[in-house]
Amino acid sequence: MTSDASAQAWSLHPVLRADTVPLGDLLLSQALIATDANYPWLILVPRRSGVTELIDLDAADRAQLMDEIAAVSTALRKVTACDKLNVAALGNMVAQLHVHVIARRKNDAAWPKPVWGVEPARAYAPDALDRFHAALRRELAMA
Amino acid sequence: MTSDASAQAWSLHPVLRADTVPLGDLLLSQALIATDANYPWLILVPRRSGVTELIDLDAADRAQLMDEIAAVSTALRKVTACDKLNVAALGNMVAQLHVHVIARRKNDAAWPKPVWGVEPARAYAPDALDRFHAALRRELAMA
Repeated sequence: MTSDASAQAWSLHPVLRADTVPLGDLLLSQALIATDANYPWLILVPRRSGVTELIDLDAADRAQLMDEIAAVSTALRKVTACDKLNVAALGNMVAQLHVHVIARRKNDAAWPKPVWGVEPARAYAPDALDRFHAALRRELAMA
Repeated sequence: MTSDASAQAWSLHPVLRADTVPLGDLLLSQALIATDANYPWLILVPRRSGVTELIDLDAADRAQLMDEIAAVSTALRKVTACDKLNVAALGNMVAQLHVHVIARRKNDAAWPKPVWGVEPARAYAPDALDRFHAALRRELAMA
């Protein structure tokens, strides 16, 4: 769906809002930083209302989402020099479609397991979060 | 990469081979059924050698992979009448790029957690696997 009505009706799910800080808006998605210092962790949320699955998006939106996954993956890998990226659309707990893009290191708290449910979220030092936020915005050429 | 040389050099990682049965070849990916009867679970493996991340694929291959994720997601949801799809490219254990497309039910063995590492794989009854395989091939219009 690409109608204005759909875009206007969209709002970020409160759980996603609570667990993140905004990074910025891409053409389709709102990009978020998960406030868990265990892992450099971005989340893309397409601004389309009522969408829970990738296949609820039309083909043009899916293509755009893949482009945005690639853009944030490239930026995240450059900023973190990570060992591996994990990309996932799960949505078992929060149905609103959102895509995790997580930088993994071989010495991180969950490696080699997926990150979900392994460790409680760990708060960022404010300056570390600010630096991460600024570095990502620079890589993504966000004004 | 779309060169013939790349396609010829590709071979399926032995761990992926051991844990699956082939469903069939799509334009880019080999589609596999994970032989774990806990969850209806497909895996797409792009036939490109040396690729571990989505962003190791070029843009045309990424777009094709998204189309194939959508096609197998649609088929899997139709065949299983699942509650949720989980789509993920992790690769922490097996680096060869592969995308999980998993049909989740609210009463499955891991719900609402991600499936990885929760339950030991459970063998399919041979006729159940045959029926699942045939239904998917029919939905995907595989000859």
